[in-house]
Amino acid sequence: MDKIEVIYNSQDKSFKKPFGAVEIGKFIKISIVVNKDILVALELINFNDKSDLLEMKKEYLNDGNYKYSIEVDTSNKIGLLRYYFILIDGYRRIYYGNNDEKLGGVGQVYNNDPVPYEVVVYEKTETPNWYKEGIIYQIFVDRFCNGNEDNKINAPKKNSFLYATWDDDPMYIKDNMGRILRWDFYGGNLKGIIKKLDYIKSLGANIIYLTPIFKSSSCHKYDVGDYEIIDEMFGTNEEFSKLCNIARSKGIRIILDGVFSNTGSDSKYFNKYGNYDEVGAYQSPNSEFYKWYRFINYPYQYESWWGIDNRPNVNELEDSYLDYMVNKKGSIIEKWMKLGASGWRLNVADELPDKFIEIFKKRMKEIDSDSVLIGEVWDDASNKISYSKRRKYLFGKELDSVTNYPLREYLINFVKGYIDSEKFKKRVMSLYENYPREIFNSNMNIIGTHDTERILTVLDGKFHLLKLILVLQMTLPGVPTIYYGDEAGLKGGKDPENRKSYPWNNENKEIMRFYLKIINLRNNEEVLKKGNLKMFHMDQNICILKRTYEGKNIIIIINNSPLHKNLNKLEFEGVYKDLFSNKIIDFDKNDINLLPYDFFILSKLR
Amino acid sequence: MDKIEVIYNSQDKSFKKPFGAVEIGKFIKISIVVNKDILVALELINFNDKSDLLEMKKEYLNDGNYKYSIEVDTSNKIGLLRYYFILIDGYRRIYYGNNDEKLGGVGQVYNNDPVPYEVVVYEKTETPNWYKEGIIYQIFVDRFCNGNEDNKINAPKKNSFLYATWDDDPMYIKDNMGRILRWDFYGGNLKGIIKKLDYIKSLGANIIYLTPIFKSSSCHKYDVGDYEIIDEMFGTNEEFSKLCNIARSKGIRIILDGVFSNTGSDSKYFNKYGNYDEVGAYQSPNSEFYKWYRFINYPYQYESWWGIDNRPNVNELEDSYLDYMVNKKGSIIEKWMKLGASGWRLNVADELPDKFIEIFKKRMKEIDSDSVLIGEVWDDASNKISYSKRRKYLFGKELDSVTNYPLREYLINFVKGYIDSEKFKKRVMSLYENYPREIFNSNMNIIGTHDTERILTVLDGKFHLLKLILVLQMTLPGVPTIYYGDEAGLKGGKDPENRKSYPWNNENKEIMRFYLKIINLRNNEEVLKKGNLKMFHMDQNICILKRTYEGKNIIIIINNSPLHKNLNKLEFEGVYKDLFSNKIIDFDKNDINLLPYDFFILSKLR
Repeated sequence: MDKIEVIYNSQDKSFKKPFGAVEIGKFIKISIVVNKDILVALELINFNDKSDLLEMKKEYLNDGNYKYSIEVDTSNKIGLLRYYFILIDGYRRIYYGNNDEKLGGVGQVYNNDPVPYEVVVYEKTETPNWYKEGIIYQIFVDRFCNGNEDNKINAPKKNSFLYATWDDDPMYIKDNMGRILRWDFYGGNLKGIIKKLDYIKSLGANIIYLTPIFKSSSCHKYDVGDYEIIDEMFGTNEEFSKLCNIARSKGIRIILDGVFSNTGSDSKYFNKYGNYDEVGAYQSPNSEFYKWYRFINYPYQYESWWGIDNRPNVNELEDSYLDYMVNKKGSIIEKWMKLGASGWRLNVADELPDKFIEIFKKRMKEIDSDSVLIGEVWDDASNKISYSKRRKYLFGKELDSVTNYPLREYLINFVKGYIDSEKFKKRVMSLYENYPREIFNSNMNIIGTHDTERILTVLDGKFHLLKLILVLQMTLPGVPTIYYGDEAGLKGGKDPENRKSYPWNNENKEIMRFYLKIINLRNNEEVLKKGNLKMFHMDQNICILKRTYEGKNIIIIINNSPLHKNLNKLEFEGVYKDLFSNKIIDFDKNDINLLPYDFFILSKLR
Repeated sequence: MDKIEVIYNSQDKSFKKPFGAVEIGKFIKISIVVNKDILVALELINFNDKSDLLEMKKEYLNDGNYKYSIEVDTSNKIGLLRYYFILIDGYRRIYYGNNDEKLGGVGQVYNNDPVPYEVVVYEKTETPNWYKEGIIYQIFVDRFCNGNEDNKINAPKKNSFLYATWDDDPMYIKDNMGRILRWDFYGGNLKGIIKKLDYIKSLGANIIYLTPIFKSSSCHKYDVGDYEIIDEMFGTNEEFSKLCNIARSKGIRIILDGVFSNTGSDSKYFNKYGNYDEVGAYQSPNSEFYKWYRFINYPYQYESWWGIDNRPNVNELEDSYLDYMVNKKGSIIEKWMKLGASGWRLNVADELPDKFIEIFKKRMKEIDSDSVLIGEVWDDASNKISYSKRRKYLFGKELDSVTNYPLREYLINFVKGYIDSEKFKKRVMSLYENYPREIFNSNMNIIGTHDTERILTVLDGKFHLLKLILVLQMTLPGVPTIYYGDEAGLKGGKDPENRKSYPWNNENKEIMRFYLKIINLRNNEEVLKKGNLKMFHMDQNICILKRTYEGKNIIIIINNSPLHKNLNKLEFEGVYKDLFSNKIIDFDKNDINLLPYDFFILSKLR
């Protein structure tokens, strides 16, 4: 028998339309081209793993091939749809599915067990413009700025340590088992952030994401002790309100980090050490908080976050918990939003029940329809399986935005030359295909956080690589996020090295200048904020982005190699202005060269 | 053959005269009583292990016994003399020597290898009255008092930790190997001591012994970085001078802790980390300090204090070292004495060459004949062998005083009931016998230091035992020493628990009142400062001290048991006043009872 040849590309509208994720109720037209007249069916698997076998309609093409098509009605199909093709040629049966990297686009033939393509079916949502067109500045509060005169520390906690100088190197004080013996503080506080609002504004950021700030023992505050008050080291509820008000008057919004998978063991809810007046779950089964927790052997053994016993896990769907945190009038989320917060980042979204996220989102939008919900997710959130369960993040009732760790990985691997421009393109385009556009444009595009090594360290201190990654971060769709201090040239490996104090008056001026310029460029170009994305590659080192919005294009060309690259072989024509260097680039002339590790950000003049 | 019976008691003047240590050039009359007419010789071993066999002169006693005597000329016999008796009865030969506890007093017969008695032959010295009649208050500077407004820290060191609150529990920040990773500071300083001089004076102390205060990395400062300046965390040279002046105006002297066995590795002499401008021994063999140290494998391996590599040992007798520290004009010891120090405590005297101590003492007394030299010695300093070498501490050219750790041990064991009053008496009297009287009266009588558990912790928090030990400390010869905070009821186990911050405004008032009263009693009684000592025991729980000076006696009676004790069986007669309670005690009447864990300090009225 002669070979069956199949042509399909999920990212090409002549095969699948519309591109990418689909709004619920809309039809998806899927076509596949085969070199023979055979039977072709679409195996369609819905979010609940129910599958339908749908016969595809044949059409003869003039070139001797056959096109098989189907229109899939997505009504009642919310969630992740998966599909592959079954091709039956007499006794022979083969499959065509996604490539085995699961990146979408061109797939491959399988003799069995095909990897399905994926398509997200979502309810339409709208993320506030201030967010999706903004720039985020992430602050780890203890390490950013102490706003007191003489660097006085707000309210030192008994049996904790203060760094002797602002410039000390961070370290944890641990026992041989790796458990924290005492917490360590630099003394950054909300007053310090208020003091630096103009700095943040001048940088071009309009959103501040604060790691947790509620009362707790630690310096990071992911072990919340009392959701109702600002930690005394950081300030007061009044200062928080003041921060939000002043920030808002400067056009800056504040987003809080919400820890809802666990509390601290040293909390008014668990109260393991009796430091709070309330009767905690650890102290008595009659505690009003007892039902929040999952005890294995009361009270000494209980479920906790990654087994760290100072962070007992909670039952997020327990009525009294949901009421307190979310639902009741004056709930925790209402309280802080009324005080000025414009949104929440849900810490470890993977560990929160889908239902909790949905309830949270609903209530949050009721309180403030102009607010935003970000989820901490470390992988592609469209098809994430966590704890053996397929998760709902992007289908409309859940997150507005996710932490774009996958993009960070692709960016780093590309600028360091670990993957070539084609692989980079495929991976980014896979995300672009998988995510509802509104969410892709709202993704928190980080290149470093308090949970990763600092970007300059990842790049071995190479400023020329940092420039490239920043150009990509600022020209891709999604909300560019700056981890405090990165713009000042801070370096640092894994935690706690990545949580150094901001080097006030000791900033790397060259890096700072670059940040200012590239952020400014982003902020001034609607195309970069809202435009569609196309990606091309010339050779393994040249990556090209094309952003398009309302007929206007910006073309970004990156050279991640130490070689000079002649760009005349590219199909571009016409005269462009480089928005970064202000140079004129005329593709109709010869000798358009891109220097080693250089880039163009081109806007067409004629 | 009939048994040879021998009677001797080195602490009884009819057998050995004078009692105890002997001034050089004086004769010692030694007599022994035997029940038979035999040959008796004295084996006399001098400091250099040379021995002489001296025949003793026989005398018949009326009771049928024989007395054998000899007068030993101590000229040219400076140092520790040892002796035992050889008794030859025909073919039979036995020995009489010290008891096997080596406590002096009544000895025992040996068939071979007798333990010798010991007697110190010394050159007469005189210790200043301010010292030997004083009360020492020991301060661990970082933990005593921060004299700044708002508890501001003087000059925090980069990469060190500050305790968040003054009341924090101390802890070391160490790696898995037990090495310090960062130093920890509370922020006590010289200003704080100045601020508290009136307090110290009101307590009754007139001498302040400061643990080291010269610039160094650590909180304890035994790793000296620069002998020429006060550590910036503690203050300035000017503040030191001010402290000494103000203290002197209040009748208080300052004694410094001199660390001359090692420097810090982080010092201007060794300069392992390049933190100092000077070229250190670690940096170059051409360093002017290179000869100070003992490198095994330059520069990485070098001798250091107890193998702790941040404290490299020095060659104390190296000319340039001796010059710098001691001999030259403006040497370290001269500098600090000119600035106001009244004496030195030599840290780890056991690790300093005899010659160094001798040179140090000579120069110190030249600078100020009214100064005092204390040695840190943990055992009986009269016969100490350290590093296999018999040491010279008490022979006149060396120490004025030693840290009386043996006495501390005896006091604790007695009040806790681990040894009975007879054993306690024997041990104290052994020290009394062994030490030149001037030194015994000048001993630093500690009951706790920065190197021991705090006394209240040793006594399991029992105030009634603390009272007994304080009564003994304040009524025995030697200079009572109070470790800062003991008087306020501070508890604490081994280092660092024994180095807690002084609990200002949270003192234990009951303990404080007792300290004040017993110190006051000591200060008011010349007999207690200068008197001779006799000790008795009634039963295993009652210990009696008799202090006598210029015909006046004070009798101290201690009951270390939970039982009432009737004292009428004692041989005392007459009417006494209890100097502590002011009660009248009439031994001629019946029913003189000592309550459980109670004491009398009696002065005869008639």
